[in-house]
Amino acid sequence: MGRVNFGNIEGVLLTPLTIIPGELGNVLHAMTNSSAGFGGFGEAYFSTVTQGKIKGWKKHTRMTLNLVVPAGNVTFVLYDDRKESRTFGTFFKTGLSPESYRRLTVPPHIWFAFQGDGEPLNLVLNIADLPHDPQEIESLPINDPKFSADVWK
Amino acid sequence: MGRVNFGNIEGVLLTPLTIIPGELGNVLHAMTNSSAGFGGFGEAYFSTVTQGKIKGWKKHTRMTLNLVVPAGNVTFVLYDDRKESRTFGTFFKTGLSPESYRRLTVPPHIWFAFQGDGEPLNLVLNIADLPHDPQEIESLPINDPKFSADVWK
Repeated sequence: MGRVNFGNIEGVLLTPLTIIPGELGNVLHAMTNSSAGFGGFGEAYFSTVTQGKIKGWKKHTRMTLNLVVPAGNVTFVLYDDRKESRTFGTFFKTGLSPESYRRLTVPPHIWFAFQGDGEPLNLVLNIADLPHDPQEIESLPINDPKFSADVWK
Repeated sequence: MGRVNFGNIEGVLLTPLTIIPGELGNVLHAMTNSSAGFGGFGEAYFSTVTQGKIKGWKKHTRMTLNLVVPAGNVTFVLYDDRKESRTFGTFFKTGLSPESYRRLTVPPHIWFAFQGDGEPLNLVLNIADLPHDPQEIESLPINDPKFSADVWK
Protein backbone atom coordinates (compact mmCIF):
# COMPACT_ATOMS: atom_id res chain seq x y z
CA MET A 1 0.00 0.00 0.00
CA GLY A 2 2.98 2.28 0.57
CA ARG A 3 3.03 5.65 2.25
CA VAL A 4 -0.08 7.81 2.22
CA ASN A 5 0.24 10.96 0.10
CA PHE A 6 -1.07 13.70 2.42
CA GLY A 7 -1.34 17.32 1.31
CA ASN A 8 -3.70 20.06 0.31
CA ILE A 9 -6.42 19.32 -2.24
CA GLU A 10 -7.32 21.78 -4.98
CA GLY A 11 -10.61 23.51 -4.13
CA VAL A 12 -10.71 22.39 -0.49
CA LEU A 13 -10.82 25.33 1.94
CA LEU A 14 -10.17 25.45 5.66
CA THR A 15 -11.41 28.81 6.98
CA PRO A 16 -10.83 29.96 10.58
CA LEU A 17 -14.04 30.91 12.40
CA THR A 18 -14.66 33.19 15.37
CA ILE A 19 -16.13 32.23 18.73
CA ILE A 20 -17.37 35.21 20.76
CA PRO A 21 -17.40 34.28 24.44
CA GLY A 22 -20.10 35.68 26.72
CA GLU A 23 -21.12 35.48 30.35
CA LEU A 24 -24.37 33.66 29.54
CA GLY A 25 -23.03 31.61 26.64
CA ASN A 26 -21.04 31.97 23.43
CA VAL A 27 -21.73 32.88 19.82
CA LEU A 28 -20.05 30.66 17.22
CA HIS A 29 -19.89 31.91 13.66
CA ALA A 30 -20.58 29.38 10.90
CA MET A 31 -21.16 31.04 7.53
CA THR A 32 -22.55 34.15 5.85
CA ASN A 33 -23.66 34.70 2.28
CA SER A 34 -20.33 36.43 1.58
CA SER A 35 -18.09 33.78 3.17
CA ALA A 36 -15.35 31.92 1.32
CA GLY A 37 -16.86 28.71 -0.02
CA PHE A 38 -20.44 29.99 -0.13
CA GLY A 39 -22.15 29.25 -3.44
CA GLY A 40 -25.81 29.45 -2.54
CA PHE A 41 -28.02 27.82 0.06
CA GLY A 42 -29.65 24.46 -0.62
CA GLU A 43 -29.90 22.77 2.77
CA ALA A 44 -28.49 22.80 6.28
CA TYR A 45 -28.46 19.58 8.30
CA PHE A 46 -26.56 17.97 11.15
CA SER A 47 -24.78 14.63 11.31
CA THR A 48 -23.67 13.02 14.54
CA VAL A 49 -20.97 10.36 14.64
CA THR A 50 -20.34 8.07 17.60
CA GLN A 51 -16.90 8.12 19.22
CA GLY A 52 -14.60 5.64 17.43
CA LYS A 53 -16.95 5.21 14.46
CA ILE A 54 -16.30 6.36 10.90
CA LYS A 55 -18.99 7.52 8.46
CA GLY A 56 -18.01 7.25 4.77
CA TRP A 57 -16.80 7.03 2.15
CA LYS A 58 -19.07 9.36 0.24
CA LYS A 59 -18.71 11.61 -2.76
CA HIS A 60 -21.11 14.24 -4.07
CA THR A 61 -21.10 14.88 -7.80
CA ARG A 62 -22.77 18.32 -7.61
CA MET A 63 -22.95 19.49 -3.97
CA THR A 64 -20.37 21.66 -2.23
CA LEU A 65 -20.30 20.96 1.51
CA ASN A 66 -19.46 23.49 4.20
CA LEU A 67 -18.74 21.65 7.44
CA VAL A 68 -18.58 23.09 10.96
CA VAL A 69 -18.25 21.20 14.27
CA PRO A 70 -19.83 23.18 17.16
CA ALA A 71 -19.64 20.25 19.62
CA GLY A 72 -17.21 17.37 20.05
CA ASN A 73 -14.23 16.52 17.91
CA VAL A 74 -14.34 15.05 14.41
CA THR A 75 -11.50 13.93 12.12
CA PHE A 76 -12.18 14.34 8.42
CA VAL A 77 -10.25 12.59 5.67
CA LEU A 78 -10.72 13.72 2.05
CA TYR A 79 -9.38 12.07 -1.09
CA ASP A 80 -8.94 13.59 -4.53
CA ASP A 81 -9.40 11.13 -7.38
CA ARG A 82 -10.39 13.74 -9.97
CA LYS A 83 -8.22 12.71 -12.92
CA GLU A 84 -7.87 16.30 -14.16
CA SER A 85 -6.83 17.65 -10.74
CA ARG A 86 -3.35 18.92 -9.94
CA THR A 87 -3.73 17.21 -6.56
CA PHE A 88 -4.96 13.85 -7.91
CA GLY A 89 -4.13 11.00 -5.53
CA THR A 90 -3.80 13.28 -2.48
CA PHE A 91 -5.38 12.69 0.93
CA PHE A 92 -6.24 15.65 3.18
CA LYS A 93 -6.80 15.12 6.89
CA THR A 94 -7.98 17.61 9.49
CA GLY A 95 -9.68 17.76 12.86
CA LEU A 96 -12.63 20.08 13.53
CA SER A 97 -13.90 21.02 16.98
CA PRO A 98 -14.85 24.12 18.98
CA GLU A 99 -11.22 24.17 20.21
CA SER A 100 -9.97 24.16 16.62
CA TYR A 101 -12.85 26.06 15.13
CA ARG A 102 -12.80 26.23 11.34
CA ARG A 103 -15.11 25.66 8.38
CA LEU A 104 -14.14 22.91 5.94
CA THR A 105 -15.33 23.45 2.36
CA VAL A 106 -15.48 20.27 0.26
CA PRO A 107 -16.13 20.76 -3.47
CA PRO A 108 -17.94 18.16 -5.61
CA HIS A 109 -16.12 14.96 -6.68
CA ILE A 110 -13.99 14.75 -3.53
CA TRP A 111 -14.31 11.55 -1.46
CA PHE A 112 -14.74 12.13 2.26
CA ALA A 113 -15.19 10.22 5.50
CA PHE A 114 -15.25 11.34 9.13
CA GLN A 115 -14.59 9.80 12.51
CA GLY A 116 -16.01 10.72 15.90
CA ASP A 117 -13.28 11.46 18.44
CA GLY A 118 -15.21 13.17 21.25
CA GLU A 119 -17.65 12.16 23.94
CA PRO A 120 -20.62 12.13 24.26
CA LEU A 121 -21.57 14.17 21.19
CA ASN A 122 -19.77 14.77 17.89
CA LEU A 123 -21.93 17.16 15.88
CA VAL A 124 -21.30 18.24 12.28
CA LEU A 125 -23.29 20.98 10.57
CA ASN A 126 -23.29 20.89 6.79
CA ILE A 127 -24.39 24.04 4.98
CA ALA A 128 -24.80 22.73 1.45
CA ASP A 129 -25.47 24.56 -1.79
CA LEU A 130 -28.05 21.94 -2.88
CA PRO A 131 -30.86 20.15 -1.07
CA HIS A 132 -30.34 16.43 -0.44
CA ASP A 133 -30.49 14.39 -3.65
CA PRO A 134 -29.49 10.71 -3.52
CA GLN A 135 -28.85 10.86 -7.29
CA GLU A 136 -25.73 12.93 -6.79
CA ILE A 137 -24.21 10.82 -3.98
CA GLU A 138 -21.80 7.92 -4.47
CA SER A 139 -20.79 5.63 -1.62
CA LEU A 140 -18.01 3.11 -1.02
CA PRO A 141 -17.36 0.93 2.04
CA ILE A 142 -14.93 2.39 4.56
CA ASN A 143 -12.45 -0.42 3.81
CA ASP A 144 -12.56 -0.03 0.01
CA PRO A 145 -9.06 -0.61 -1.47
CA LYS A 146 -9.21 2.81 -3.20
CA PHE A 147 -8.48 4.32 0.23
CA SER A 148 -5.52 3.38 2.38
CA ALA A 149 -6.61 2.29 5.85
CA ASP A 150 -3.45 4.02 7.07
CA VAL A 151 -5.13 7.41 6.74
CA TRP A 152 -6.92 6.85 10.06
CA LYS A 153 -3.73 6.10 12.02
CA MET B 1 -48.92 42.10 37.05
CA GLY B 2 -51.90 39.90 36.22
CA ARG B 3 -52.06 36.74 34.16
CA VAL B 4 -49.74 36.25 31.21
CA ASN B 5 -51.52 36.14 27.88
CA PHE B 6 -50.02 33.05 26.22
CA GLY B 7 -50.98 31.99 22.71
CA ASN B 8 -49.86 31.77 19.12
CA ILE B 9 -48.24 34.81 17.51
CA GLU B 10 -49.03 35.83 13.94
CA GLY B 11 -46.13 34.88 11.67
CA VAL B 12 -44.38 32.61 14.18
CA LEU B 13 -43.99 29.05 12.88
CA LEU B 14 -43.13 25.86 14.72
CA THR B 15 -42.22 23.21 12.15
CA PRO B 16 -41.58 19.54 13.08
CA LEU B 17 -38.21 18.25 11.87
CA THR B 18 -36.99 14.73 11.16
CA ILE B 19 -34.15 12.89 12.89
CA ILE B 20 -32.92 9.86 10.93
CA PRO B 21 -31.25 7.42 13.33
CA GLY B 22 -28.25 5.41 12.19
CA GLU B 23 -25.85 2.83 13.60
CA LEU B 24 -22.88 5.19 13.42
CA GLY B 25 -24.77 8.37 14.25
CA ASN B 26 -27.87 10.30 13.31
CA VAL B 27 -28.87 12.83 10.69
CA LEU B 28 -30.92 15.79 11.93
CA HIS B 29 -32.71 17.92 9.39
CA ALA B 30 -32.60 21.70 9.89
CA MET B 31 -33.76 23.60 6.80
CA THR B 32 -33.86 23.52 3.00
CA ASN B 33 -34.37 26.32 0.51
CA SER B 34 -37.98 25.18 0.11
CA SER B 35 -38.80 24.90 3.83
CA ALA B 36 -41.56 26.83 5.56
CA GLY B 37 -40.05 30.01 6.93
CA PHE B 38 -37.16 30.18 4.46
CA GLY B 39 -36.78 33.61 2.89
CA GLY B 40 -33.17 33.55 1.70
CA PHE B 41 -29.83 32.87 3.33
CA GLY B 42 -27.92 35.63 5.07
CA GLU B 43 -26.01 33.91 7.86
CA ALA B 44 -25.91 30.77 9.98
CA TYR B 45 -24.46 30.95 13.50
CA PHE B 46 -24.70 29.15 16.82
CA SER B 47 -25.52 30.50 20.27
CA THR B 48 -24.92 28.57 23.45
CA VAL B 49 -26.71 29.37 26.69
CA THR B 50 -25.63 28.16 30.11
CA GLN B 51 -28.09 26.10 32.16
CA GLY B 52 -30.32 28.40 34.21
CA LYS B 53 -29.28 31.53 32.31
CA ILE B 54 -31.51 33.61 30.02
CA LYS B 55 -30.30 35.51 26.94
CA GLY B 56 -32.52 38.39 25.84
CA TRP B 57 -34.57 40.39 25.32
CA LYS B 58 -33.81 41.07 21.69
CA LYS B 59 -35.78 42.17 18.68
CA HIS B 60 -34.71 42.27 15.04
CA THR B 61 -36.31 44.89 12.85
CA ARG B 62 -35.48 43.17 9.52
CA MET B 63 -34.15 39.64 10.16
CA THR B 64 -36.25 36.49 10.21
CA LEU B 65 -34.71 33.86 12.51
CA ASN B 66 -34.95 30.11 12.03
CA LEU B 67 -33.94 28.38 15.25
CA VAL B 68 -33.02 24.73 15.74
CA VAL B 69 -31.62 23.05 18.88
CA PRO B 70 -29.51 19.98 18.00
CA ALA B 71 -28.09 19.58 21.53
CA GLY B 72 -29.48 20.34 24.97
CA ASN B 73 -32.79 21.88 25.86
CA VAL B 74 -33.75 25.53 25.40
CA THR B 75 -36.95 27.38 26.36
CA PHE B 76 -37.87 30.28 24.08
CA VAL B 77 -40.29 33.04 25.00
CA LEU B 78 -41.53 35.40 22.29
CA TYR B 79 -43.59 38.56 22.70
CA ASP B 80 -45.65 40.37 20.10
CA ASP B 81 -45.81 44.14 20.60
CA ARG B 82 -46.51 44.96 16.94
CA LYS B 83 -49.37 47.43 17.29
CA GLU B 84 -50.94 46.35 13.99
CA SER B 85 -50.84 42.64 14.84
CA ARG B 86 -53.92 40.55 15.54
CA THR B 87 -51.88 38.87 18.30
CA PHE B 88 -50.58 42.10 19.90
CA GLY B 89 -49.76 41.59 23.59
CA THR B 90 -49.38 37.80 23.28
CA PHE B 91 -46.51 35.73 24.67
CA PHE B 92 -45.51 32.47 22.98
CA LYS B 93 -43.46 29.90 24.89
CA THR B 94 -41.92 26.69 23.59
CA GLY B 95 -39.10 24.26 24.33
CA LEU B 96 -36.73 23.06 21.63
CA SER B 97 -34.42 20.06 21.95
CA PRO B 98 -33.46 16.92 19.99
CA GLU B 99 -36.25 15.14 21.93
CA SER B 100 -38.78 17.75 20.81
CA TYR B 101 -37.18 18.49 17.49
CA ARG B 102 -38.74 21.45 15.65
CA ARG B 103 -37.69 24.62 13.87
CA LEU B 104 -38.92 27.90 15.34
CA THR B 105 -39.36 30.72 12.82
CA VAL B 106 -39.36 34.22 14.35
CA PRO B 107 -40.34 37.06 12.01
CA PRO B 108 -38.99 40.61 12.43
CA HIS B 109 -40.33 42.88 15.21
CA ILE B 110 -40.99 40.01 17.66
CA TRP B 111 -39.20 40.20 21.02
CA PHE B 112 -37.50 36.98 22.09
CA ALA B 113 -35.40 35.54 24.89
CA PHE B 114 -34.20 32.03 25.64
CA GLN B 115 -33.14 30.03 28.66
CA GLY B 116 -30.72 27.10 28.89
CA ASP B 117 -32.36 24.08 30.51
CA GLY B 118 -29.91 21.27 29.65
CA GLU B 119 -26.44 20.19 30.74
CA PRO B 120 -23.66 20.60 29.75
CA LEU B 121 -24.45 22.15 26.37
CA ASN B 122 -27.47 24.07 25.08
CA LEU B 123 -26.83 24.81 21.42
CA VAL B 124 -29.03 26.96 19.17
CA LEU B 125 -28.52 27.22 15.41
CA ASN B 126 -29.97 30.32 13.78
CA ILE B 127 -30.37 30.23 10.00
CA ALA B 128 -31.07 33.89 9.29
CA ASP B 129 -32.14 35.61 6.09
CA LEU B 130 -29.69 38.49 6.71
CA PRO B 131 -26.09 38.65 7.85
CA HIS B 132 -25.49 40.10 11.32
CA ASP B 133 -26.16 43.84 11.44
CA PRO B 134 -26.22 45.58 14.85
CA GLN B 135 -28.29 48.39 13.27
CA GLU B 136 -31.36 46.17 13.06
CA ILE B 137 -31.16 44.75 16.62
CA GLU B 138 -32.88 46.25 19.67
CA SER B 139 -32.19 45.01 23.19
CA LEU B 140 -33.89 45.35 26.55
CA PRO B 141 -32.83 43.98 29.94
CA ILE B 142 -34.33 40.62 30.86
CA ASN B 143 -36.26 42.25 33.74
CA ASP B 144 -37.70 45.11 31.66
CA PRO B 145 -41.29 45.84 32.81
CA LYS B 146 -42.56 45.36 29.24
CA PHE B 147 -42.23 41.62 29.86
CA SER B 148 -43.85 39.78 32.74
CA ALA B 149 -41.27 37.84 34.76
CA ASP B 150 -44.00 35.20 35.15
CA VAL B 151 -43.36 33.94 31.62
CA TRP B 152 -40.33 31.96 32.88
CA LYS B 153 -42.27 30.12 35.61
